[in-house]
Amino acid sequence: MKAADPATIETPVGYLDLSRVRANARRVAAYADGHGLRWRPHIKTHKSLAVARIQLEAGASGLTVATLREAEVMATLTPDILLAYPPVGVAKLERLLALPRELDLKVALDAPEVLAPLAAAAAASGRTVGVLVELDVGLGRVGVRTDADLVRVAEGAASGRGVAFRGILFYPGHIRGPRESQSSPVAQVAERLRAALDALGAAGLEPEIVSGGSTPTLWDSHLMTGLTEIRSGSCIFFDREALDVGVASAEDLAYTVLTTVVSTAVPGHAVVDAGSKALAKEGRGGDGFGVVFEHPEVVVRSLSEEHGVLDLGATTWRPTIGERVRIVPNHVCVSVNLQDALLARDGEAHRMLTLDARGRGPWTA
Amino acid sequence: MKAADPATIETPVGYLDLSRVRANARRVAAYADGHGLRWRPHIKTHKSLAVARIQLEAGASGLTVATLREAEVMATLTPDILLAYPPVGVAKLERLLALPRELDLKVALDAPEVLAPLAAAAAASGRTVGVLVELDVGLGRVGVRTDADLVRVAEGAASGRGVAFRGILFYPGHIRGPRESQSSPVAQVAERLRAALDALGAAGLEPEIVSGGSTPTLWDSHLMTGLTEIRSGSCIFFDREALDVGVASAEDLAYTVLTTVVSTAVPGHAVVDAGSKALAKEGRGGDGFGVVFEHPEVVVRSLSEEHGVLDLGATTWRPTIGERVRIVPNHVCVSVNLQDALLARDGEAHRMLTLDARGRGPWTA
Repeated sequence: MKAADPATIETPVGYLDLSRVRANARRVAAYADGHGLRWRPHIKTHKSLAVARIQLEAGASGLTVATLREAEVMATLTPDILLAYPPVGVAKLERLLALPRELDLKVALDAPEVLAPLAAAAAASGRTVGVLVELDVGLGRVGVRTDADLVRVAEGAASGRGVAFRGILFYPGHIRGPRESQSSPVAQVAERLRAALDALGAAGLEPEIVSGGSTPTLWDSHLMTGLTEIRSGSCIFFDREALDVGVASAEDLAYTVLTTVVSTAVPGHAVVDAGSKALAKEGRGGDGFGVVFEHPEVVVRSLSEEHGVLDLGATTWRPTIGERVRIVPNHVCVSVNLQDALLARDGEAHRMLTLDARGRGPWTA
Repeated sequence: MKAADPATIETPVGYLDLSRVRANARRVAAYADGHGLRWRPHIKTHKSLAVARIQLEAGASGLTVATLREAEVMATLTPDILLAYPPVGVAKLERLLALPRELDLKVALDAPEVLAPLAAAAAASGRTVGVLVELDVGLGRVGVRTDADLVRVAEGAASGRGVAFRGILFYPGHIRGPRESQSSPVAQVAERLRAALDALGAAGLEPEIVSGGSTPTLWDSHLMTGLTEIRSGSCIFFDREALDVGVASAEDLAYTVLTTVVSTAVPGHAVVDAGSKALAKEGRGGDGFGVVFEHPEVVVRSLSEEHGVLDLGATTWRPTIGERVRIVPNHVCVSVNLQDALLARDGEAHRMLTLDARGRGPWTA
């Protein structure tokens, strides 16, 4: 018995179709190229060197990361690393500045209180770290909110030792998809961006990088005038959310969770062995936690840690114990993060794929 | 700089107070002992050999697990292992039967379609695996629903080669806490249990083990007449859910997530570096995803993968960038499962604690 065989491998396990990964990478790279944009994909979705290599081979100009672990691992593949997260605290700063010196290293931040310690630590280690000032364009999570604050932080980056002003970064995460983004929200982002760029220009600051994009707004990124790059990450795999907002179709799905039916004791239900520790219990307003890939009318109604309850109310499918099905999770990034390895299909062959940048270690005792 | 220092360690990181772990273990063991019950704690909550050792030293009679990985790791500590999960599929059966032969190994299941392959595989390997038939007492997840089905599966276990009928198992996960369990739901469970035991008795089957319990119903387990053991797992750490249902108080909380404030750019909010990849985005009806331990009036309003948005609407606390706070997650088990190590406080000392049974590997390529 081969271990990496979808018919017999122990479940639950994340299942990746590498031909779809390559097709998704080529399509996003072609879209970006066609609109004069760079693609610096966020690798939080996959945390895998093998998948990052596919993105770079397809034309990605570098990689975006959120954690120092991700930065360390991905710096072995490309010199162009963007840490799209404020490096706050001595431990993160030390780890950041221990990255290879030949990197073109950039970080995103939104406050002088983050900039000052970064600049001091970088200067002390004889390095210069690029800074993208993060701008809130409507999500209300992080990012400066006024042009005055934007210019203030940008000027700090432009004038300080140890740091260099490289541009701005935003995340239009409040726009939930193409239907929305065709109308006012995307126009509002474009308008906000124009005002921000005008304010920087008036202060004599020229952003080399204007970094934006998200998977829901992926195919409308070119409508945000002034953008130089997109970071869209989950578009490499897609998920139920992407299907629902219309940014991808079922043929584009590269990631599912392979499961086995383990109980049919409760009428109207079947239970698979993928629970919240394999799919992640990220709800969507009472709409369940995923769907069965082979029977998309079947919703994962509830999740315990190791149980996924399938609602059979809308299907003629009658699952039997031992039968294997794949689940499309609501949100791919958090499901991948729960796997310790993926079963990857490459043509007719299968192999195990490691998630190299998962976790936050190494920890020293 | 010491690495395992809560003032400087890289965040987010799970933080464990071992003195509270020991106190919780002693209290649960004393409760069980006082009511003539055994405690076979479910180690899914912690997946840690160090914590399991504390439970066994406090008087736990064995350990309950959900995965084969957990079984393999915990079998190094105790000969008494209950896999409270149906072992469906060749891969799980092979791994189950590769466990040390000297174990007193028991599994839970609810169907002849699970029992038959288990019995065949066990007999072929010259072993006898104990069977607890799982009974649905109201949760509607897994478990036989009728006395006829219960007796049928139990008789199959009692008569088959490779397996032995050892008793029944149930999980009263539909009862949300002491207030509820004092009234009709717990009485209904007791009644269901009595009928089940009567039906088994009438068929000449004597269950040696009647395994139940949950953390919300923990202190009322003795009201479920006929019970011989409880498996309560999350009571070793407790969480926000336990506080809300009244089964624990803030002094009992052993696990929190240590975080750093990374942004205060958006008015009324502060952002910490623990997101859904550290806390798990398990909602509780719009009530947020956790609370700040030091400022329990502050709710984690929303989560992105690496951002936790704190709602400052009900507090006079004004967090500053770089400040450290600990978050009490809604559901401890899924948050612990997201950590690759914990910072453990033991008296005045701190050390890193590994989560030995996390993941599902080893995988063979």
